[in-house]
Amino acid sequence: MLSKSLAKFIKSLQLKKQRKKEGLFIVEGEKSVNELLQSNFKVKYLVGLSDYVNDINQPTFEVFEANEKTLDSIGTFKSSDRVIAVAEMKDVKNFSISKEEIVLALDGINDPGNLGTIIRLADWYGVKSILASPETADLYNPKVISATKGSFTRVNVYYTDLVAALSESQAPVYGAMMEGQNLHKVKFESGGIIVMGNEANGISPQVEKLIKHKITIPKFGKAESLNVAMATGIILDNVKRN
Amino acid sequence: MLSKSLAKFIKSLQLKKQRKKEGLFIVEGEKSVNELLQSNFKVKYLVGLSDYVNDINQPTFEVFEANEKTLDSIGTFKSSDRVIAVAEMKDVKNFSISKEEIVLALDGINDPGNLGTIIRLADWYGVKSILASPETADLYNPKVISATKGSFTRVNVYYTDLVAALSESQAPVYGAMMEGQNLHKVKFESGGIIVMGNEANGISPQVEKLIKHKITIPKFGKAESLNVAMATGIILDNVKRN
Repeated sequence: MLSKSLAKFIKSLQLKKQRKKEGLFIVEGEKSVNELLQSNFKVKYLVGLSDYVNDINQPTFEVFEANEKTLDSIGTFKSSDRVIAVAEMKDVKNFSISKEEIVLALDGINDPGNLGTIIRLADWYGVKSILASPETADLYNPKVISATKGSFTRVNVYYTDLVAALSESQAPVYGAMMEGQNLHKVKFESGGIIVMGNEANGISPQVEKLIKHKITIPKFGKAESLNVAMATGIILDNVKRN
Repeated sequence: MLSKSLAKFIKSLQLKKQRKKEGLFIVEGEKSVNELLQSNFKVKYLVGLSDYVNDINQPTFEVFEANEKTLDSIGTFKSSDRVIAVAEMKDVKNFSISKEEIVLALDGINDPGNLGTIIRLADWYGVKSILASPETADLYNPKVISATKGSFTRVNVYYTDLVAALSESQAPVYGAMMEGQNLHKVKFESGGIIVMGNEANGISPQVEKLIKHKITIPKFGKAESLNVAMATGIILDNVKRN
């Protein structure tokens, strides 16, 4: 049975400070947890409705049966899903990027939903690595994990100083800007780093200096802007059709 | 001064039944209201903070000054913006579509955020008309209006029986499906209707029968799916680069 103290502990992982201290994060919902269980993340606890829990064979983690009310109380979803898992964060400080791969660099993406959607897009378009400035939302925020729809298990997000990382890179650096080359005319290399900027302020001045190819999604109507996750999807689609 | 009864009336427009009865809807937030005031929608009431209200010259509608607390209480935003307006819905029952234009057809888009995002995308890519099945979310839902970021003023949404509309159309009908031609290989005509299906169930069987060109966004990685608004953006970008 799930003790009150463990329930409280799991709930506390909604806070970044607590996640960082414990090295643990929560994954909510059947689809995401199923992907987690098939990944190389190490699962520590799983709390689920009886039918979900009874289907688990030879778990390598502690399993607890709970009712919907308990799941609601420890998770962030409005209406309860069938399962919540607790897993260990990965230590992904060191990264190396091949000149032949496409990498995203996120310069201060604040909104958890945007970050999660971008991770899902990266997974769709076969992008394996994302560099994120320290100001970017936390990968392990439950809203981010949820928005990735399981793709957090297949895409690595490296929090790092973007100025240092881009300075050292030998791959071409592209940046989504207001005044750049028409995306439909850009000839992308087989590898490169694509920088996406903050929702309100765009790419920061220090990072902008390191961008060699400014690119712009052409506009045919009158909307003022596109959401940054949408822009990332459209750019990745263009990169891959080249 | 804004009377309690008028405040209550404006708040009641959050409900579809009430909007339909009154033929009115609410627009929240400075950016959206600014776009509304420049559009051909007829504004009836405007409620705003004193600095916003004082900047309005010769209004053709009733203007009320209110404090943040009042704005919070009548609107749907979590933290108050500076202004809320009430405008008259447009009667857009009759539509005619040129064979030379790109039109979206939405077959049961349920989520207000998705509908709003699709309207914003249509506006970016110069799509002027959207056909929507009766099951599609209500254009005048405050969440839809808000997600359009002002683009509801420039894109017409026609609620109609899609089977009838597509049957009568002489333009080619494209549909986003799981098993279609690779989007990157499709040669789009200068005009055509692009059908996007429901978030969970895709395009309905009756509508599917009328689709001549099934198209699929190619996948290079392992994510199971893309959000329908994201898919719409990527498809429109491909249509326009043809």
